[in-house]
Amino acid sequence: MFSSVDKRILITGGTGFAGSHLIEALLQEGYQDVHATSYSEPPEHLRELLPPENFHKIDLTDSEVTNELFSRLKPDQVYHLASFAFVGESFAKAPQVFQNNLTLQINVLEAVKTHVPQARVMITGSAEEYGVSIDESEIPIDEDHPLRPVNPYAVSKVAQDLLAYSYGLSFDLDIVRVRPFNHIGEGQTTDFVVPAFVSQIVEIERGYRKELKVGNLDSVRDFTDVKDMVRAYIVVMEKGQINEVYNIGSGQGTKLEDLVELIKKLATVKVAVISEASRRRPHDVPVMIADNTKISQLGWKPEIPLEQTLERIFHWHRQQKKATL
Amino acid sequence: MFSSVDKRILITGGTGFAGSHLIEALLQEGYQDVHATSYSEPPEHLRELLPPENFHKIDLTDSEVTNELFSRLKPDQVYHLASFAFVGESFAKAPQVFQNNLTLQINVLEAVKTHVPQARVMITGSAEEYGVSIDESEIPIDEDHPLRPVNPYAVSKVAQDLLAYSYGLSFDLDIVRVRPFNHIGEGQTTDFVVPAFVSQIVEIERGYRKELKVGNLDSVRDFTDVKDMVRAYIVVMEKGQINEVYNIGSGQGTKLEDLVELIKKLATVKVAVISEASRRRPHDVPVMIADNTKISQLGWKPEIPLEQTLERIFHWHRQQKKATL
Repeated sequence: MFSSVDKRILITGGTGFAGSHLIEALLQEGYQDVHATSYSEPPEHLRELLPPENFHKIDLTDSEVTNELFSRLKPDQVYHLASFAFVGESFAKAPQVFQNNLTLQINVLEAVKTHVPQARVMITGSAEEYGVSIDESEIPIDEDHPLRPVNPYAVSKVAQDLLAYSYGLSFDLDIVRVRPFNHIGEGQTTDFVVPAFVSQIVEIERGYRKELKVGNLDSVRDFTDVKDMVRAYIVVMEKGQINEVYNIGSGQGTKLEDLVELIKKLATVKVAVISEASRRRPHDVPVMIADNTKISQLGWKPEIPLEQTLERIFHWHRQQKKATL
Repeated sequence: MFSSVDKRILITGGTGFAGSHLIEALLQEGYQDVHATSYSEPPEHLRELLPPENFHKIDLTDSEVTNELFSRLKPDQVYHLASFAFVGESFAKAPQVFQNNLTLQINVLEAVKTHVPQARVMITGSAEEYGVSIDESEIPIDEDHPLRPVNPYAVSKVAQDLLAYSYGLSFDLDIVRVRPFNHIGEGQTTDFVVPAFVSQIVEIERGYRKELKVGNLDSVRDFTDVKDMVRAYIVVMEKGQINEVYNIGSGQGTKLEDLVELIKKLATVKVAVISEASRRRPHDVPVMIADNTKISQLGWKPEIPLEQTLERIFHWHRQQKKATL
């Protein structure tokens, strides 16, 4: 348990995938004054965890309401997770991606600077910022890996990340940054690869679908359990060095082909796999594995094995389908 | 002279500081079909160089007119120089800086992708993208130096640069990128350090001002003559490797203190120097010197010595003041 459990915490995007798990983790750690912003109504399981007045349904691209919230709440710690994530669609939606992600970033940073300049703020970038690796020597990817993002969403994350860096430096704000690699767990939408696969398989188990449709399976990705991921966020918030950025990832690469095999083993039926060109993106990064040396030095390491995470995701999807089918 | 002088060339931001010099250099190299976009009316000396129909007064943040221009002109080569540059003011104007610089970047890249996917396109980033160097080993700055921009303008240049990279990679566009370090010459506005100093000194020479007011003089910068700079643009356009980025700078650092001494020597009167806090930015990068190995390998090197450039700038400002005072 950390010494600062009495502090007031604000999580932007607090009802999203990582945000939901972060709320749970913070409550488990003993933090009591946890607030979350959200763009839409919070899901039921979160409404059981926090009182209604701790949810703040606001649009962070509106500077006025953002300022009002920060001036009223005066959080001691801000986990800034809110972001529009449309990786696959981000070429078609490039103007909106930039407009939304940069406007909300400016609004949050300005609100911190104006109302809570002493607050510690954790900014969420993405491993997508690194993009392409030129040769073996660049893998695993450390924090000084050149930024070679391959889609507008990734470029918007670079801009969010570096804008926070420039604000921190220029106005002496207490900002730390993270670049999470792929993370998986309950509650992730099927826009992401693991829930997309597991959800299809549960439909096959129920007889609603015949085959598992997949895109490019040559890519190698570094998967971390979302529960390990949000634990890392708390570690960086509590112990991270000001102005620094931390990769968060298991350090282990899994080829998507092998991931599909692992997932198939957890199915209750035999699964046929079909590759579809439409599921491929304009440009996919072949290998992304985190060098997690820097965050290891803060005392974090991943604890949950991939198989166990996948089992939990299966369980979650089977529960979900029970409710909806 | 290059083999492609019969190609149609479009320079965005063609009537700005670097753009004007680029037009002159291209005409000198024998290129005949040179077009320029501009936000405002072209200055007189440019109107003497190109016929009126080669100037296209359009707002590149308007996607419709941008598309119309590219579909009508069908340029073979595009020097994309247009950008809103407010380094000092960029914290106050952060939303506009992003809105303008990213919207025009998306519009130009989309227009290229739609109407001239075979065109070679040179994208202009900035040495400002590199920002802070952590230790001596990072100087001189090569193209893999981590991006640690210190103000929103610099972050918008990172986003422009990397967005172009992601488009090039994803849609097989023929894109090359440059990151120019400081460049100086006739026609630069007094928002930049050298013309700000020279212009003041010419006012002192004329008796309109008593002292030279300066900001922080500890910074070290790499100054290149704008004529050498635009020659480098042409070299990268003609010989640069697709998807690559090239630093352009002399490779020589000059401390601003020493620059002031050089400038004082060129004055016809004795100049008193006064340091003003208001001329300092929230955060200044201490040392910026280019590692220009990569562009050297394309056959470019700077040719004009700093003293000679400063003399030309003095001459230009004395002519200007003659006209206006």
